[in-house]
Amino acid sequence: MTFRDRLIAAQTATGSLICVGLDPLPDRLPEPLRNLPDKVEAVRLFCKEIIAATADVACAYKPNLAFFEALGARGWEIFEDLVDTIPDDRIIIADAKRGDIGSTADLYAEAFFGRLLCDGITVSPYMGSDALTPFLQYPGTCTFALVLTSNPGAEDLQLKQIDGEPLYKHTARMAVAAAKDQPGEIGFVVGATRPALLGDLRTEFPDVPFLVPGVGTQGGSYEDVLKANKNGPILINLGRSVLYASSGNDFAEKARGRVEGRG
Amino acid sequence: MTFRDRLIAAQTATGSLICVGLDPLPDRLPEPLRNLPDKVEAVRLFCKEIIAATADVACAYKPNLAFFEALGARGWEIFEDLVDTIPDDRIIIADAKRGDIGSTADLYAEAFFGRLLCDGITVSPYMGSDALTPFLQYPGTCTFALVLTSNPGAEDLQLKQIDGEPLYKHTARMAVAAAKDQPGEIGFVVGATRPALLGDLRTEFPDVPFLVPGVGTQGGSYEDVLKANKNGPILINLGRSVLYASSGNDFAEKARGRVEGRG
Repeated sequence: MTFRDRLIAAQTATGSLICVGLDPLPDRLPEPLRNLPDKVEAVRLFCKEIIAATADVACAYKPNLAFFEALGARGWEIFEDLVDTIPDDRIIIADAKRGDIGSTADLYAEAFFGRLLCDGITVSPYMGSDALTPFLQYPGTCTFALVLTSNPGAEDLQLKQIDGEPLYKHTARMAVAAAKDQPGEIGFVVGATRPALLGDLRTEFPDVPFLVPGVGTQGGSYEDVLKANKNGPILINLGRSVLYASSGNDFAEKARGRVEGRG
Repeated sequence: MTFRDRLIAAQTATGSLICVGLDPLPDRLPEPLRNLPDKVEAVRLFCKEIIAATADVACAYKPNLAFFEALGARGWEIFEDLVDTIPDDRIIIADAKRGDIGSTADLYAEAFFGRLLCDGITVSPYMGSDALTPFLQYPGTCTFALVLTSNPGAEDLQLKQIDGEPLYKHTARMAVAAAKDQPGEIGFVVGATRPALLGDLRTEFPDVPFLVPGVGTQGGSYEDVLKANKNGPILINLGRSVLYASSGNDFAEKARGRVEGRG
């Protein structure tokens, strides 16, 4: 099954384009969990409750590796546990933002696609196309290259002009060229904070899946993204607005409400 | 103690500019270890023997996270064990090539600098200066931004021209500007495969520490790098040529010989 087919199936089953970003901070957990003596175990319970409460209304999950690595070896074990917990017919994207080459990238690809069976990964493209190609060797997966990110620092390099065009467009073309033999396996990370530029990218790349962070806390709008996207394949990520929808006992129910209300 | 002072102390104590890259592949371990039933434990033993054999002739170690993550949660635990094993007066650089922002980068910084007490980290700069700043909040550490890498893909983005200059120079200036309040805490990753460009960067940035991969297997020359570097602060990485110097019982001794012979 191609990534595209799996994405359509997950979105049809849930009626949702929402990807829930799992970025758990021990100090921000809802009160009933924040006060548990074992803070690492509390993160596991929290994420599992969020997944259970949202799995029929979210098509995808994006655990951010940083938040698990910050907890040490046990955090990594929790990440693996969550990958097992998320239903098989939902999309799992490892938000790793790795960018390395050759045997190193081979190993990252083996870890996330070969061993853990994630469906997607985010990759930083600064090192060039050989940072992407190792990830493209796993049929049915999608490698999301950072193209145009939602943060202020996007202006530092991504929006600089090269030959009359912004760098991020070169990145997008480089990524697509790297996947010329696996065209369904490359995606872009495109921030919600610049919907006009997202729309431009969509016009040029009608079939490339976009993973879109930046809705909610960062200021992007779900509706603006949807309009600019012109029905292309898309995953719209919601993170903090879902995870921290309530600090009380009703956190999971409120999280579900945010997914249904889209932010 | 500043990072620069710690670097000078480690290099004076060892008489060496060499950083040993710890990139262990279970299938490439020397025969006595490759045949152990527990492949993950074999990686631990291998790395510890390499460290023990080279700690008085190498000033630094650079464990590459990918190689440990590929082993799962136990790999992450081995990474932590190695950080504890490397003598305190050697430099430890976490080769993570992470590039993320805000609370995510805060967490990576906390994991590698706050909790594990690494001395340096490699960071991918594609997302801009806000991908670097969280790492600069830990005095005595150094954040090595990828500037000009040693792989063929460096041509895809890094060597593209922006306003008449290659992108990597913009990256270098952006990184230095991000660290304007912590000038000793920013470094560059500059590949050994383009010594003339390394020399140019050194002329413009005489005091910035360079972490230089690409000597040996990738084709860069220790002597060419040294000449181009004009006595600036530098760490020259040797990886596979040291780790896999011999596949027999003498692997540790041969590894030491490669460090002493510089490649």
